[in-house]
Amino acid sequence: MSNDCGTSRIAGCQFTLHPMTDKFVDVILGALEEVDTTNVWKDTDDVSTCIRGKMVHIFDVTKAIFLHAAKTGEHVAMSGTFSIGCPGDSSGDVYMDVTDEVLNEVKSKDISQKAGCKFALYPMGREDYMDKIYEQIDLSKARGVDVSASHYATRLDGEVNDIFHTLEESFDKVQEKVSHVTMTFTISANSPSTKK
Amino acid sequence: MSNDCGTSRIAGCQFTLHPMTDKFVDVILGALEEVDTTNVWKDTDDVSTCIRGKMVHIFDVTKAIFLHAAKTGEHVAMSGTFSIGCPGDSSGDVYMDVTDEVLNEVKSKDISQKAGCKFALYPMGREDYMDKIYEQIDLSKARGVDVSASHYATRLDGEVNDIFHTLEESFDKVQEKVSHVTMTFTISANSPSTKK
Ligand SMILES: [Ca+2]
Repeated sequence: MSNDCGTSRIAGCQFTLHPMTDKFVDVILGALEEVDTTNVWKDTDDVSTCIRGKMVHIFDVTKAIFLHAAKTGEHVAMSGTFSIGCPGDSSGDVYMDVTDEVLNEVKSKDISQKAGCKFALYPMGREDYMDKIYEQIDLSKARGVDVSASHYATRLDGEVNDIFHTLEESFDKVQEKVSHVTMTFTISANSPSTKK
Repeated sequence: MSNDCGTSRIAGCQFTLHPMTDKFVDVILGALEEVDTTNVWKDTDDVSTCIRGKMVHIFDVTKAIFLHAAKTGEHVAMSGTFSIGCPGDSSGDVYMDVTDEVLNEVKSKDISQKAGCKFALYPMGREDYMDKIYEQIDLSKARGVDVSASHYATRLDGEVNDIFHTLEESFDKVQEKVSHVTMTFTISANSPSTKK
């Protein structure tokens, strides 16, 4: 088994964007057209997209892609795994010298879009990994999102901007204490199903 | 942060099924109609589906759902996280007393469907987690699938039946040595994109 990942504080996200419509190609391409990805390394194939670079840009870009796809009104879902500190990740092709200034926030912050999200944090290589999660994450203080427990995950409901803020803050706090952290998430908007 | 999961050898999978078509509801319901889920605990909401029970049934059911959705010919993707040994999982509502006889294999095994899949294994709570992966997994012996490296994941290409066999075997081998293991995956079929 070969995991092609690294030693520096490169962050990354391997994700999928799935519009449930015949026009899925247009929705995906339309969203990508609206999002500035110049601050991240990016590779897309038929299964998923991987972006790598500074953590702040990883969250800025994933949030923007989801928002611009969801604002079409189509039922859209994104699933993926954020990762930082993966042993083996080479920094060679990664955009670590760019500024911290996010390129998509101006357009993103004005998009009002409700969604539901489930996520799970995995601090790697630590026997006390559950303690690390509980110590670092206090979701009772999460702003603007409803937090609930789910099997194998925590559920967040609210505005997409607030959900991604909570995801980024949770991931950031744990990675300050644990070298290798991954965080899985799946976020869904405009579902015809009624929320339970 | 509350992860509602457990202490016994209950396995589970939190997953999404995304048909990229206007008929996504029909594709999902049609697939579920073809799959016998009586051997697993199951809960679905607007974001994802969670199934729990014996490992053998978790893989049998996820594979069958994906196969029956993909055989429609629509572009379909499934993403999720398999989990076993999660500290906190209560066995109360879990179907651990059922037989090991899989209920969907007879129908599944005759469905020929190509797909691409990316997966990553996360043995939890172990400082030697990378060693545990390399020790247990020898994908050079994986039958019927092409194996390649990808950022943060390993890619498998081939028949869906062979891909799920490789996923289950990899997960099974690591969980024999490590108490809490999670495995993320995303599998895609009938994509209009050309494989890179
Ligand atoms: Ca994971």
